[in-house]
Amino acid sequence: MQLGMIGLGRMGANMAQRLHRAGIHVQGFDPAAQAREQVSAAGIATSDTLQDLVHAIPAPRRLWLMVPSTVVDATLGALLPLLSNGDVVIDGGNSWYKQSQARAARCGERGVAFVDCGTSGGIWGREEGYCLMVGGDVGTVAGLAPLFRALAPAMDRGWAHVGPVGAGHFCKMVHNGIEYGMMQAYAEGFALMEKKAEFELDLAQVTELWRHGSVVRSWLLDLGADALRDNPTLAGIAPYVEDSGEARWAVAEAIDLEVPAPVITLSLQERLRSRQRNSFTDRMLATMRRQFGGHAIRKTDA
Amino acid sequence: MQLGMIGLGRMGANMAQRLHRAGIHVQGFDPAAQAREQVSAAGIATSDTLQDLVHAIPAPRRLWLMVPSTVVDATLGALLPLLSNGDVVIDGGNSWYKQSQARAARCGERGVAFVDCGTSGGIWGREEGYCLMVGGDVGTVAGLAPLFRALAPAMDRGWAHVGPVGAGHFCKMVHNGIEYGMMQAYAEGFALMEKKAEFELDLAQVTELWRHGSVVRSWLLDLGADALRDNPTLAGIAPYVEDSGEARWAVAEAIDLEVPAPVITLSLQERLRSRQRNSFTDRMLATMRRQFGGHAIRKTDA
Amino acid sequence: MQLGMIGLGRMGANMAQRLHRAGIHVQGFDPAAQAREQVSAAGIATSDTLQDLVHAIPAPRRLWLMVPSTVVDATLGALLPLLSNGDVVIDGGNSWYKQSQARAARCGERGVAFVDCGTSGGIWGREEGYCLMVGGDVGTVAGLAPLFRALAPAMDRGWAHVGPVGAGHFCKMVHNGIEYGMMQAYAEGFALMEKKAEFELDLAQVTELWRHGSVVRSWLLDLGADALRDNPTLAGIAPYVEDSGEARWAVAEAIDLEVPAPVITLSLQERLRSRQRNSFTDRMLATMRRQFGGHAIRKTDA
Amino acid sequence: MQLGMIGLGRMGANMAQRLHRAGIHVQGFDPAAQAREQVSAAGIATSDTLQDLVHAIPAPRRLWLMVPSTVVDATLGALLPLLSNGDVVIDGGNSWYKQSQARAARCGERGVAFVDCGTSGGIWGREEGYCLMVGGDVGTVAGLAPLFRALAPAMDRGWAHVGPVGAGHFCKMVHNGIEYGMMQAYAEGFALMEKKAEFELDLAQVTELWRHGSVVRSWLLDLGADALRDNPTLAGIAPYVEDSGEARWAVAEAIDLEVPAPVITLSLQERLRSRQRNSFTDRMLATMRRQFGGHAIRKTDA
Repeated sequence: MQLGMIGLGRMGANMAQRLHRAGIHVQGFDPAAQAREQVSAAGIATSDTLQDLVHAIPAPRRLWLMVPSTVVDATLGALLPLLSNGDVVIDGGNSWYKQSQARAARCGERGVAFVDCGTSGGIWGREEGYCLMVGGDVGTVAGLAPLFRALAPAMDRGWAHVGPVGAGHFCKMVHNGIEYGMMQAYAEGFALMEKKAEFELDLAQVTELWRHGSVVRSWLLDLGADALRDNPTLAGIAPYVEDSGEARWAVAEAIDLEVPAPVITLSLQERLRSRQRNSFTDRMLATMRRQFGGHAIRKTDA
Repeated sequence: MQLGMIGLGRMGANMAQRLHRAGIHVQGFDPAAQAREQVSAAGIATSDTLQDLVHAIPAPRRLWLMVPSTVVDATLGALLPLLSNGDVVIDGGNSWYKQSQARAARCGERGVAFVDCGTSGGIWGREEGYCLMVGGDVGTVAGLAPLFRALAPAMDRGWAHVGPVGAGHFCKMVHNGIEYGMMQAYAEGFALMEKKAEFELDLAQVTELWRHGSVVRSWLLDLGADALRDNPTLAGIAPYVEDSGEARWAVAEAIDLEVPAPVITLSLQERLRSRQRNSFTDRMLATMRRQFGGHAIRKTDA
Repeated sequence: MQLGMIGLGRMGANMAQRLHRAGIHVQGFDPAAQAREQVSAAGIATSDTLQDLVHAIPAPRRLWLMVPSTVVDATLGALLPLLSNGDVVIDGGNSWYKQSQARAARCGERGVAFVDCGTSGGIWGREEGYCLMVGGDVGTVAGLAPLFRALAPAMDRGWAHVGPVGAGHFCKMVHNGIEYGMMQAYAEGFALMEKKAEFELDLAQVTELWRHGSVVRSWLLDLGADALRDNPTLAGIAPYVEDSGEARWAVAEAIDLEVPAPVITLSLQERLRSRQRNSFTDRMLATMRRQFGGHAIRKTDA
Repeated sequence: MQLGMIGLGRMGANMAQRLHRAGIHVQGFDPAAQAREQVSAAGIATSDTLQDLVHAIPAPRRLWLMVPSTVVDATLGALLPLLSNGDVVIDGGNSWYKQSQARAARCGERGVAFVDCGTSGGIWGREEGYCLMVGGDVGTVAGLAPLFRALAPAMDRGWAHVGPVGAGHFCKMVHNGIEYGMMQAYAEGFALMEKKAEFELDLAQVTELWRHGSVVRSWLLDLGADALRDNPTLAGIAPYVEDSGEARWAVAEAIDLEVPAPVITLSLQERLRSRQRNSFTDRMLATMRRQFGGHAIRKTDA
């Protein structure tokens, strides 16, 4: 089977290599020459333009998008005119499921099938396999099974056709919301242990301990144990946490569905908060306290 | 009527003056000479020691404690041996209601009555009157009515006998929990308006506007309007918010009673958070993100 | 000055009457005959169709929409073809500010000015006046000042031109977010007092007490006191709380602006939660507890 | 090595069997005859009274308490007079770490050593091994290593001496706080998927899928997958979630340490909320909405 991989960043390059090793013929494209070269060095064929990529693959083509969610529409705009009836586009990135549904409609107008594939596994996926949540129509997804089998941890585990177009990215959105909540729960717990000076706890020891037999054992904990073993005080790491969009969609979805998701929501907000350096909220609180109670406020260094 | 006022800090001194102006004979004491002098300058008699204070007042005495909650027990320890059967001690500060119940028992062993009085009104109470939530037995509280009438905004409004000993401080604890939640709600709203650069909103204008006819009008909003009129950008004010204990008790009580109080709880936690400068929680989150996704972290300036 | 009032529901009818009493000539329209009749009975002229309404008012016309946010676009669609260059449409309802911006553009294409007016005050506005947050261009808003003066609590207080089109509804959205947070804070506090059987607190008494001199006094508390005086145990009232959209927009806006608003957000989610009768979240938690710990679960009545 | 196991409930009986299979001589006691009989049937010696148990074991004795946290003090009160200098008591249950510190002092007065052991693993521990967080002094803990090795998943993994007395139960308290947060995160995510009727998601399929390669894979997810496979709609399970104390202590600790733990806290409060049937908070909110806006309320069935 042949596949065009569009986007050879961290995720796309790793996936190309896992597919290549599984015997899939991968033809890669990325606008950045350096990204193409790195993948070439791993023995994978690349094309310098989208047009070349499309021409290099016999129809019906399978094209996997692994690009930032912000450029999916532009990529699709450049790609669609080059495609033929019966080709398939798979979006394996972190797109909002409603956009995936719209994109499927747009592709459908040209006779191109669209599949959304929520992909989890991070940088570990290349060796351990990726968890793939696939949305699309039955026939199209069935035809892509060899790709999913190659990418998943095992041929028949770690990938599934979860529903129609949109369902894959919907599941990935929820998955990431859960991930935010789990991470926040762990991080709060470790902060409690770190602050409890009385016990002089060795966080790396406790994390390693919990990996074996405890109710909170998980892959995230495994990674936390690695991090704390290497840097037990998290020295040099700024308290600044990015987010990548999915939890925002999850919060909006929860409100649309009228399903409370307080922990997922709060986990996102804690990340927003980590990035504030001069919170107006807190300054307003300090000011109001002074107004009614004459309480002292702290002045900023001016 | 005579009253001994023990503690002449911001609250105690103001209350002494309001009582004095209402024709109550106030005898003040504070361990700090400066505090005594300021009150003396307002025409109020003071004593240099607790013993002198007690001797200066004819039995049965009324002694009002307006001291930090952390020194109530020590003050009571010094005071009780000086008192006689039939004297009354009123704790007007921010004590935990369970401690007030224990203190009432301790006083009772010596024939001294104890009344807990939750006091709200801040620095504005001297002119506007204080809201007083009074706990104690019926007869004792009735005998103190002239004091409460003098301190309250109006003779028959703004003070009430809400229940047995402890009930006064319990109500004040809940009151302050609500206060934290209200303040946080306002502060979040103002932060949203401040960040919305597109509209160039004048926060002082909006606050003033809301004071008239809106559903969110309140005394806290009045104070917020004052603050924003004087300093519309809250320049020079650090995002650092203290708390004074009552909300902590309220959170513990909510859990004991098995009544969810998520907004009150979160409002307290947001204050704790405002005081963190290098959150371990956030550093742990940043580290975990890097571990699984290879995401960049920010380094601290070293 | 003349004004067409479109929408004679609870809010529109009350506003029409307040304007009428202030000497503004109001011409009312509502698709429901009963709504028109009630307003007619108060001495206000009404029209049976939008077309009649528009014809009854000399150009340049002022038309105030007071309709559910879900029908604003349809109403505007019917209205715009009837209007002339120089007419003004004011949306006084609870619209999302981004839709107001889009509607202003749509009106502008026909030479019709658009003003968004966030309106607070509820059913009390008719007697006490409404708080009005007005967005629009300077000249248009200035020309409407007599209307705003008539509706506001006082001629020069309780209404303000807060910014360009959209700014009025933006401020109202934030206002309502704050309102949700304040209400939740009060409600949590009252629930704590209600559960504390030991003190047999009289909630109506405490609420009334807090209205005088306390830090938490507010108009919402005044209303809470009314409610608890009439029904101290809230007998017969179901624990089911609606929401009306603004807080949802506020949560989405907070995330877009990357400003944490945890208390506003949680207050909305608590309302969503109040409407759930068989929470899947809780059933999932109960199931997981049983799976790892063998803990008993409760069965539903089957 | 010999061990007295006091408390033969679900946890104690399982641990006794795991120890017994590892060649430790276990002597069991439980006040309930039925509990003793079940353990006897598994080939483990039991005593009918605490006194018999103590006499059946040669000094220096090792006695493991596996009793509800509410009866630890009473059990210790009965046990201590029977013990001799050099004996060791291990509390393997879910006690508050400050009580463990006090109990260690109480035991120390009689020359009895005390070790606190936070135990995780639930009903699966018998086969898979328990995660053990051990607090105590170095020599005492070292002497108990054969017991911990037998109980842990592997001889050198899954148990650790984490610090002085109290540190074991402190870590377990934090562990359970994290567990509550993780469970809530999963449960919220599943509720979102369950409500999204459009995709007709098969929750059992998605859960099973996520177990392989995803970032959220964990042991709790494994158990969730088991539960959903057996009962995909969670039919018959009431939305009622118990809590067992540790998270309450964790919330109190977070506030004492002034470390925000919003997700852990909220996860506990969501459980409290699941147990409310006629929330006063929600009824108060509904009432206030009606007061200011004339909004309809729902009546209870009377």
